[in-house]
Amino acid sequence: ESKKILGTKPDGSLLYTTGDSHHPVASYTDGTYDGKYAWTNDKLNSRLARIRLDTFECDKITELPNVQGLHGACPDKRDPVDPKINHTTRLFVGSEFAVPLPNDGRDLEKPEKYASLVTCLDAETMEVRWQCRVDGNMDLLATSYDGKLAAWNQYNSENGVHFTEMMVAERDNVVFVNIARVEQAIKDGKFKTYGDSKVPVADGTKEANKDPKTALICYVPIPKNPHGVNATPDGKYFIASGKLSPTCSVIDLSLILKWFAGEGKEPRDIVVAEPEVGLGPLHTTFDGKGNAYTTLFLDSQVVKWDIEAAIKQFKGDKNVKVVLDRIDCHYQPGHLNASMAETREADGKWLVVGSKFSKDRYLPVGPLHDENEQLFDITGEKMKLLADHPAHPEPHDFIIVKRDKIKTRQVYAIDEFPNAVKDYKDSRVDRKGNKVTVYLASGAPQFSLGEFKVKRGDEVTVILTNHDKIEDLTHGFGIEKYSVNFIVNPGETRSVTFKADKAGVYWCYCTH
Amino acid sequence: ESKKILGTKPDGSLLYTTGDSHHPVASYTDGTYDGKYAWTNDKLNSRLARIRLDTFECDKITELPNVQGLHGACPDKRDPVDPKINHTTRLFVGSEFAVPLPNDGRDLEKPEKYASLVTCLDAETMEVRWQCRVDGNMDLLATSYDGKLAAWNQYNSENGVHFTEMMVAERDNVVFVNIARVEQAIKDGKFKTYGDSKVPVADGTKEANKDPKTALICYVPIPKNPHGVNATPDGKYFIASGKLSPTCSVIDLSLILKWFAGEGKEPRDIVVAEPEVGLGPLHTTFDGKGNAYTTLFLDSQVVKWDIEAAIKQFKGDKNVKVVLDRIDCHYQPGHLNASMAETREADGKWLVVGSKFSKDRYLPVGPLHDENEQLFDITGEKMKLLADHPAHPEPHDFIIVKRDKIKTRQVYAIDEFPNAVKDYKDSRVDRKGNKVTVYLASGAPQFSLGEFKVKRGDEVTVILTNHDKIEDLTHGFGIEKYSVNFIVNPGETRSVTFKADKAGVYWCYCTH
Repeated sequence: ESKKILGTKPDGSLLYTTGDSHHPVASYTDGTYDGKYAWTNDKLNSRLARIRLDTFECDKITELPNVQGLHGACPDKRDPVDPKINHTTRLFVGSEFAVPLPNDGRDLEKPEKYASLVTCLDAETMEVRWQCRVDGNMDLLATSYDGKLAAWNQYNSENGVHFTEMMVAERDNVVFVNIARVEQAIKDGKFKTYGDSKVPVADGTKEANKDPKTALICYVPIPKNPHGVNATPDGKYFIASGKLSPTCSVIDLSLILKWFAGEGKEPRDIVVAEPEVGLGPLHTTFDGKGNAYTTLFLDSQVVKWDIEAAIKQFKGDKNVKVVLDRIDCHYQPGHLNASMAETREADGKWLVVGSKFSKDRYLPVGPLHDENEQLFDITGEKMKLLADHPAHPEPHDFIIVKRDKIKTRQVYAIDEFPNAVKDYKDSRVDRKGNKVTVYLASGAPQFSLGEFKVKRGDEVTVILTNHDKIEDLTHGFGIEKYSVNFIVNPGETRSVTFKADKAGVYWCYCTH
Repeated sequence: ESKKILGTKPDGSLLYTTGDSHHPVASYTDGTYDGKYAWTNDKLNSRLARIRLDTFECDKITELPNVQGLHGACPDKRDPVDPKINHTTRLFVGSEFAVPLPNDGRDLEKPEKYASLVTCLDAETMEVRWQCRVDGNMDLLATSYDGKLAAWNQYNSENGVHFTEMMVAERDNVVFVNIARVEQAIKDGKFKTYGDSKVPVADGTKEANKDPKTALICYVPIPKNPHGVNATPDGKYFIASGKLSPTCSVIDLSLILKWFAGEGKEPRDIVVAEPEVGLGPLHTTFDGKGNAYTTLFLDSQVVKWDIEAAIKQFKGDKNVKVVLDRIDCHYQPGHLNASMAETREADGKWLVVGSKFSKDRYLPVGPLHDENEQLFDITGEKMKLLADHPAHPEPHDFIIVKRDKIKTRQVYAIDEFPNAVKDYKDSRVDRKGNKVTVYLASGAPQFSLGEFKVKRGDEVTVILTNHDKIEDLTHGFGIEKYSVNFIVNPGETRSVTFKADKAGVYWCYCTH
């Protein structure tokens, strides 16, 4: 079962044996978490994995065509056309590394032909619906509460392929996609496909989207190699953190929609505030009371600032107080998130910050250190540090979801699994040619068969149903020297297939 | 480098892709931890792994011949013959599952010919020195502070192969090996070898060891399917926990040595106490003040009891108070350990207990729960619960080592690695036929080469030296779609070899 989800090569071995997961996100209904799905990216292999939140198990992984460096992903919160569809139906995914299209060896020496694509997946089927070619490198994504817009912070607007080429421009962009327009363009046949992939790819390059009234994409210039874009819980703004600029940029979504309607001015005018918050702003989160909290990578601080005050200041008000509080945190903080901050129910209670360097905070365990995650109380005017927690290096991203949003199952029903060994009496060994199936049931502390015998060379499938009905009475099944080791939760059925290539006695035992 | 340690099949793929680790132990000098090595078992593949405690990295893995179900392991604390050698030179390892010798398909239907072996490894080379065939199934091991004895709790003295056959006898054994005698027997050529293995195997079965004066092994009968044997910090006793019996058995090591000298009575007389402590005693630890702490799996308690009082009671003293305290802990507790308890420096400060069922202690995350580890203060008369900590299911074993025993390195010296790319100017791509070597150096935030080009079909080796000298400035190196992802600590050099089997642009990036 796991292999089917993970994907295999023609010889049955795993397609990929390593990955690089960064960002968890979760599905929405009515602008808040509905506890149905979470997703996370594999940047190394351009894959997106879905986790069922009723069991906290991965049930699907999709590898995206035409892209590399799958980084940020964001579920939508409402349908772009039909506002009655008030839950997540699509996911938008950014790709950080531009590659030739198709990436089959052509255009190696022509980096100007390399492309990044934004990808839209179906949240239920996990199939790719469409892609759209864009300029620059895509980092993290946000979606609007009205379902009409997805956006990402873009760096390398220079379209360079080497590190030094990517930091020339003083401004990069937050890039907005008009979802309904892209989907209409695809419907109208305005797309290409590349190589073996059948996924339609629309053209969202700046060059091809000069007229706002027909543009699929809007490029909003902001300073400089920005890192992270986040949606305010009131649905009004997206805020991008400046990274190489000491600023955050506040973008008014109503002005984006105006721009797409042909009623706007230059995209740069869509920026309604750009407060200086400190050195190395990376990510921003919210308390639902109008305040933003931004990590400062170089200052090793979290800065709390007032969004509406920043807008007033940007308009020229010199008396307004934008920055309300700063607190030192552990070193080189990256992602931060406040409780429910990525929903309309941001509650302003808790803030967690992940730090890339813990220095001497934890006992030394060799060259690779534990890193640190810090919990803050943000209910008052001043942020308060409450606790540290060691984290695997490097701690990346997380979301904080209220416990009542997550309703997990504790026990499976045996009938859910078509291959279940429903009765202990069904325990047996069946042979068809050299294919042997072993039907096993388990109830602590015993398996239903004391032994099974097969012939060397047989392809053996062991099907195991856990008949225990008590929460957490998970069984394990391992076979000595056969790299077989899996768990079966109460009521669940799992199977494994292997080749019996060694003669002798090999003990099976419960590994859990 | 990792593959060499992990072991590969002839085609270069990993020999094993899963394992089952249970018990960490650490090396000794003068009867206390010296911070040099730790070891842990892989029960699934009969392997023992060594971890260097200066870097907390695994540097060797040995797969043992002739055995399955490698469970407990214990380093020795002194040489059995030369007491001047006061540090760990050997490891003793138990195998839980009896198999035919050799296990090549013979004797499948003759379980009476199946055997378990105790294995002795060299702590430095990690090579197997010898094995000794014994009756029953071996569980956990302890070694004496004088270096002369290793022992394990044995269940299935019945030598059964099915679950129900293993619980017939009212008593199983704690089994002691006279290390010097086994090594002399091996020297004298009194051993066999089996199959392809050249490891000498002595005969330690009960049948072959009836005369104490020449016996390699002493079987001390105790009730019933005991679980865990632990050495008291004063070096006097081994204590086994009764599991299916509500007792712990205290064994006097001086009487064991007397028995081997032919001066003892029946082995059962070596048991000097057997207090009733509660239902399901599994493991015992110590505070260095004469008290033992035993987990009760069925009662879900830790019981504190006085060892010398138990001995007096066993002699007939009815007024003595053996059990001093009980404290409820989380459900089905298994392993427990007090700080430094497995050394002469047991300090009686902290106690940690791992529980197999946390029930509703943590937020529900589906059928598979977080489990619980609990920290107790044992400095006073009464144990005090201080804190809970969620643990991966199922939490197995651990040791508590004082921080000043562990001296880790933070940064490597570039010269330690013969293949280091010592100078940025050495960065290059070398080709010999279809073998390509890429020499890379890295200093945050850049690799020394912006790109490298190879031909489809090439065997590519990337050697990467991290030139950063700052603690914890670990670099990562990943290649898109090539299942390549590794870290390189400051000053370290690592390499990877892969086949370039896909045409196109594949981005390399820092994954850390």
